[in-house]
Amino acid sequence: MASIDFWFSIGSTYTFLAVMRLSQIAAKSGVEFDWHPFNVRAIMIEMDNIPFAKKPVKAAYMWRDIERRAAKFGLTARFPIPYPLTELEQANRVAVLAAAEGWCAAYTVAAYERWFVNGEAAGSEPNLSASIAAAGQDAERVLKMANSEAGIDALYAATDEARGLGIFGSPSFVVDGELFWGHDRLDDAIEWQTNLDRATPG
Amino acid sequence: MASIDFWFSIGSTYTFLAVMRLSQIAAKSGVEFDWHPFNVRAIMIEMDNIPFAKKPVKAAYMWRDIERRAAKFGLTARFPIPYPLTELEQANRVAVLAAAEGWCAAYTVAAYERWFVNGEAAGSEPNLSASIAAAGQDAERVLKMANSEAGIDALYAATDEARGLGIFGSPSFVVDGELFWGHDRLDDAIEWQTNLDRATPG
Repeated sequence: MASIDFWFSIGSTYTFLAVMRLSQIAAKSGVEFDWHPFNVRAIMIEMDNIPFAKKPVKAAYMWRDIERRAAKFGLTARFPIPYPLTELEQANRVAVLAAAEGWCAAYTVAAYERWFVNGEAAGSEPNLSASIAAAGQDAERVLKMANSEAGIDALYAATDEARGLGIFGSPSFVVDGELFWGHDRLDDAIEWQTNLDRATPG
Repeated sequence: MASIDFWFSIGSTYTFLAVMRLSQIAAKSGVEFDWHPFNVRAIMIEMDNIPFAKKPVKAAYMWRDIERRAAKFGLTARFPIPYPLTELEQANRVAVLAAAEGWCAAYTVAAYERWFVNGEAAGSEPNLSASIAAAGQDAERVLKMANSEAGIDALYAATDEARGLGIFGSPSFVVDGELFWGHDRLDDAIEWQTNLDRATPG
């Protein structure tokens, strides 16, 4: 069975729902997810696509919607969540390194849990180092690598790859060249993958 | 059983999915829908909330997404759909009158079918008069009333009511003061209504 590419940025609010549910969904559906961090904010600014900033009515709806959706899926979250966040590139540089080294899911789940449950802003301390530690890694080593020239370039490269796939928001799912945007399309992405697997058995 | 308020504007693309599915869903779920046309474009302009215009990557995704969703729900649609539309207020003024007179669903379904299947732009002729006729009404009478001062005021009043409910997009569903935005939240709105009915039997 092929896997679904899960493209996300730490700092995206709706991404919380996907990050917290993905391992359980993978276990249940048998579909695997490859975690691909990128910098959605950079792409959104390029496209002048800022859905919630300076839109208080829509932003208020978003929080209520996330609260209802979290409850529906049995996820703990304590509102209000620290928002907006000031520093995000570092958190996503760490995520890109984590993806290369194989501890991305554990780190990202920890970062979102600390942000949405403990009220610690994602991308800032103590969230950053604690989330790295939660994934069994040494924060000093990781932050040094993530903030090196190579670490900075790796996030740019990941963002270029996302842009090339037509990705403009987080979370996004890519299955066999098909792009599905939003946690709301997670079920459709899995269905697409399942139908592909049926069409090409073995 | 109470009903769900279905707020929509003719001209919204994603609203196609809700408009075409609603009567079947109502029959299946036992939940009733009250159709409330309003002018979403006016509210979106006020909020500087224009999700697709001048965002070609996002717009391209939208069409592909609607195409996939239409297929998923067994709806016929022929792409490309005429877009963007030039004239929408008249179509929605007619819808407001139709809601007052009790033929709003038939008219709106016809308008979307002609737009998405026959390629006739919604809000323009021949779509406008044909959709009125499809609802068993006399186009001349209806257009005269809809374009009268009272008809113009009625669309403003409906839009004011929507704004007061915190509505910022189409389609939206309102259940017991809870706002659900988008066709993607139709199931959640129905679930909310069903839980209410269980909580207050009789």
